[in-house]
Amino acid sequence: MTPLDADALFDAHRARLDRAVQANRQRTAWSPFMESPSRKHHPPGAHAAGRAAYEDRLGMAMLEDHPARVGWVGAEVSPYTGAPLDVRYPQVDVTALLEHVEAVRPPWARASPRQRVGVCLEILDRWSRQTFENAYATMHTGGQGFMLAFAGSGASSLDRGLEALAMAWAAMDQIPAQATFQRTFGPGPAVTLHKRYRLVPVGVAAVVTCGSYPAWNAWPALLANLATGNPVVLKPHPNGVLPVAIAAETARRVLQEAGFSPDLVTLVADEPDAPATVSLLRHPSVAIIDFTGSQRFGAWIEENCRDKQVYTETSGCNAVVLESVVDLDATLDAIAQSLSMFSAQMCTAAQNIWLAPEGVATPEGAVSVEAVCARLDAAIGRLVVDPERAIGLCGTLQNPGVLTTIDEVRQVARREQLSIVTDSHAIVSEAWPKARTATPLVVRCSHTDRALYGHEHFGPIGFVVVAKSRQHALDCATRDARERGSIAAYAYATDPARQDTIIDAFSAAGASVGINLLRQRPINFTAAFSDFHVTGLNPAGTACLTDLAFVARRFRVVQAKLELPSA
Amino acid sequence: MTPLDADALFDAHRARLDRAVQANRQRTAWSPFMESPSRKHHPPGAHAAGRAAYEDRLGMAMLEDHPARVGWVGAEVSPYTGAPLDVRYPQVDVTALLEHVEAVRPPWARASPRQRVGVCLEILDRWSRQTFENAYATMHTGGQGFMLAFAGSGASSLDRGLEALAMAWAAMDQIPAQATFQRTFGPGPAVTLHKRYRLVPVGVAAVVTCGSYPAWNAWPALLANLATGNPVVLKPHPNGVLPVAIAAETARRVLQEAGFSPDLVTLVADEPDAPATVSLLRHPSVAIIDFTGSQRFGAWIEENCRDKQVYTETSGCNAVVLESVVDLDATLDAIAQSLSMFSAQMCTAAQNIWLAPEGVATPEGAVSVEAVCARLDAAIGRLVVDPERAIGLCGTLQNPGVLTTIDEVRQVARREQLSIVTDSHAIVSEAWPKARTATPLVVRCSHTDRALYGHEHFGPIGFVVVAKSRQHALDCATRDARERGSIAAYAYATDPARQDTIIDAFSAAGASVGINLLRQRPINFTAAFSDFHVTGLNPAGTACLTDLAFVARRFRVVQAKLELPSA
Repeated sequence: MTPLDADALFDAHRARLDRAVQANRQRTAWSPFMESPSRKHHPPGAHAAGRAAYEDRLGMAMLEDHPARVGWVGAEVSPYTGAPLDVRYPQVDVTALLEHVEAVRPPWARASPRQRVGVCLEILDRWSRQTFENAYATMHTGGQGFMLAFAGSGASSLDRGLEALAMAWAAMDQIPAQATFQRTFGPGPAVTLHKRYRLVPVGVAAVVTCGSYPAWNAWPALLANLATGNPVVLKPHPNGVLPVAIAAETARRVLQEAGFSPDLVTLVADEPDAPATVSLLRHPSVAIIDFTGSQRFGAWIEENCRDKQVYTETSGCNAVVLESVVDLDATLDAIAQSLSMFSAQMCTAAQNIWLAPEGVATPEGAVSVEAVCARLDAAIGRLVVDPERAIGLCGTLQNPGVLTTIDEVRQVARREQLSIVTDSHAIVSEAWPKARTATPLVVRCSHTDRALYGHEHFGPIGFVVVAKSRQHALDCATRDARERGSIAAYAYATDPARQDTIIDAFSAAGASVGINLLRQRPINFTAAFSDFHVTGLNPAGTACLTDLAFVARRFRVVQAKLELPSA
Repeated sequence: MTPLDADALFDAHRARLDRAVQANRQRTAWSPFMESPSRKHHPPGAHAAGRAAYEDRLGMAMLEDHPARVGWVGAEVSPYTGAPLDVRYPQVDVTALLEHVEAVRPPWARASPRQRVGVCLEILDRWSRQTFENAYATMHTGGQGFMLAFAGSGASSLDRGLEALAMAWAAMDQIPAQATFQRTFGPGPAVTLHKRYRLVPVGVAAVVTCGSYPAWNAWPALLANLATGNPVVLKPHPNGVLPVAIAAETARRVLQEAGFSPDLVTLVADEPDAPATVSLLRHPSVAIIDFTGSQRFGAWIEENCRDKQVYTETSGCNAVVLESVVDLDATLDAIAQSLSMFSAQMCTAAQNIWLAPEGVATPEGAVSVEAVCARLDAAIGRLVVDPERAIGLCGTLQNPGVLTTIDEVRQVARREQLSIVTDSHAIVSEAWPKARTATPLVVRCSHTDRALYGHEHFGPIGFVVVAKSRQHALDCATRDARERGSIAAYAYATDPARQDTIIDAFSAAGASVGINLLRQRPINFTAAFSDFHVTGLNPAGTACLTDLAFVARRFRVVQAKLELPSA
């Protein structure tokens, strides 16, 4: 182990940090990481080595040096193979762990922001070199397709982590370590005060990650906390431990190499039948909670952990307002992809496609609701007709409850005599014969069926919802965003004045909207350094990830001033 | 009325804003405002005109154009004259007021940050020209001496307001209004997205100000809220309405001249026997609470208004750790001034003077506890021996309960056989024969008497507390800061290593500390653009006033992205 110097790490990564700070302000396209796994972008053998590194994890124990270990846990099952991963993680005594973390945190709190950010930049760089390994870990836990997993646990989340780190640095960097203050008080000579400003972290942060897409929120939260001096206790979903544990292992190693306690990053793993999240979150040592998961649990935290700083990203009822297009089939292809990609298990996936009774305006004239439904069905069909392509796109379902939800929605549709635009089926893949999968189910309904469409259905379930008019469709879509939450909304309208109306309406509902997204594929794509995330203005959560509000409260300023003796 | 253009206001005040942004980062000494009322700094007649403007308020109604008025209230009594001011303020229906404010807020939310900050800079400039008037209003409501009132409702608070405004501008300015995003997705040509970022205010802010020193917290809170687009409902203390109402009147006029609704700044006045604060704070329209006042009410708000953003500044148990000095009498003069100035009714006033049993080290040798007490008594005596100087320094007591507290502490001291270092007496002033006043009461006690010294006594009450040793004194002082709150602590120690130990100890208690303050007079003085305020790390509150955390959550970002048609 070569010892690392935290200040030297800062210097080594300084150019990347400065560029990220600039990107945060310019918000144009930038990423220092590679989102494609194509061999032409990586050293020879990188992919095979990463896959082997993943396979070497199977059946093994991890984080054997973890504090407060009282046993081993781990019940992850690959949704591709149906086989247990058999990776064992420390089972920890939460109280003993937090006592230990409290004990080791002072030197990290006292380290300079520069040193802490230097270590964080190195962690991020090491993570970026583990992207193949982490992609396989994400695939076989959360269930993502490989391509998505590579981008999602790789560049997309690394970008978001660097973005948060740069934001934390910008917030801390504006406060000088010291200042000389000189002025007169009354008639005497000038008085000189030497002032020191200490940035004091607020305390231990618990970072709760979701099973399907852990890195996206975990990397920003972990780095924002660590950079501002707060130790991080990661609490992954019981079937999404491995990607998080790999990242924790790496972060712990870097911390140790840099002369700090590895226990500034720890992991509370659990199994579905013995969850540990509530006891962790309620522990008085936990001062910060970063949560990704269900709206229901997020609301519980916001209600019950009010003595702590809480940053949540939950879920919403994401709309597509479909009014007028230049190319209907290209539009429906884009929407179909959003309904299919990773089986719509992402917080930005579209769910409710809103139409006026007259259908959609196109250069060829109005296309009826009926025809739009038929052409959407065809678009989905094109995406899933080939099973191996389909499973690459749709990935798998980590949670068997998604299949139950699909069944339930199908039954409601039949009972209510709603037409099924596209039915869902399992993907029969030769590569993954035991995979748990489902192609999209799309149901046509009316705006009056809000009990059906008016909340998030986690999984590949969409609705074509027919409103009374275009404006009514927009009103309903934004009402749902306001009342039920929305992280991403979509709209298609060719008239600029109408685009402004749509933007104003979603803005008033606190929902970000993408207009006429066709060739930005997937339309769900959210770019770090450019796209803001959760607005905090509707029930989909409070954690923007990407703004000063996400970082500025994680540390406080304590000052000392010393009057220098008069000359 | 000359109509104002908000953008032109921004340009007109731009140099001041830019200098303030720079000052916030450098934290050296700077102020664009004049803290001395001396005639040489002001136009001829300014003082007399300001006093006349104040006197013209007496017996009159204010804010006659205020919305939701259902009657008139106002029960302020001058603690200098004992006479009612007889200024009448609108009594409002809180629910009707908030409905109205919700109705008028959209245009202000849609105004650009530049326009809003331009209007705020103009408000601040207008306030600065009313300093003489507002000083008299502060004097005859809160009870401050004129000199303090002039600096306190003038430059010191104007600085703090400009500081918060500059911080809000810096936070908003880092987000561009729009960006062009261009990159390839897959093999096709580059895709161009036009992105717009809208800063969306979170909602109506209730700003609760204290009776004794309203401007200090009100100006930063009002300007931080208004700049970020949130309407402000001011809720002054029932005996501290006039300074706030004058500022509200001015802000309303500027808003109106700039083409916005004056009702973006409103006032909920009340009388002591019919308080309106709780119904205002609990109203669902109120999204932000800025509170200055008692720790007890602050804790109630933090507990009961958890669905809102809450920023509090309450009170603490401020210590002076007295170990070693270069000039004991100069040190005791400085401490005596802090115990006397405005009758220690400021959040930064010293209360508990901690000594080791061996007393204080001086260049002439150790000075015993007994001798320190005698020389402190003499120092206080020098300050209050002349009644007219004494009332100028001590000001008056708006709240008659302070006299009761003094009596109670005196009785406890007698009952517990604690020695009274300095007794309190009323100031018999010829200028203000009916003033309610008290000089400091100082009681000597032991560290075991925590029931006596271990909480804030609002008013001119101090304790000399003898601990078991120097280190024990520091331990006790920082324990009180940690557990009971502290906004400002003081220490005197000549050895640099010991200074570092003291700084570390107070820092760990989340309390800022001033070391060896002698010629910075008063030692309580806190400089905007240089000194940070509340740390948020102990029970004295959460509102730093002066950092990004104070402003960054008052707005959120909602974005829209529009894909441009392919070429």
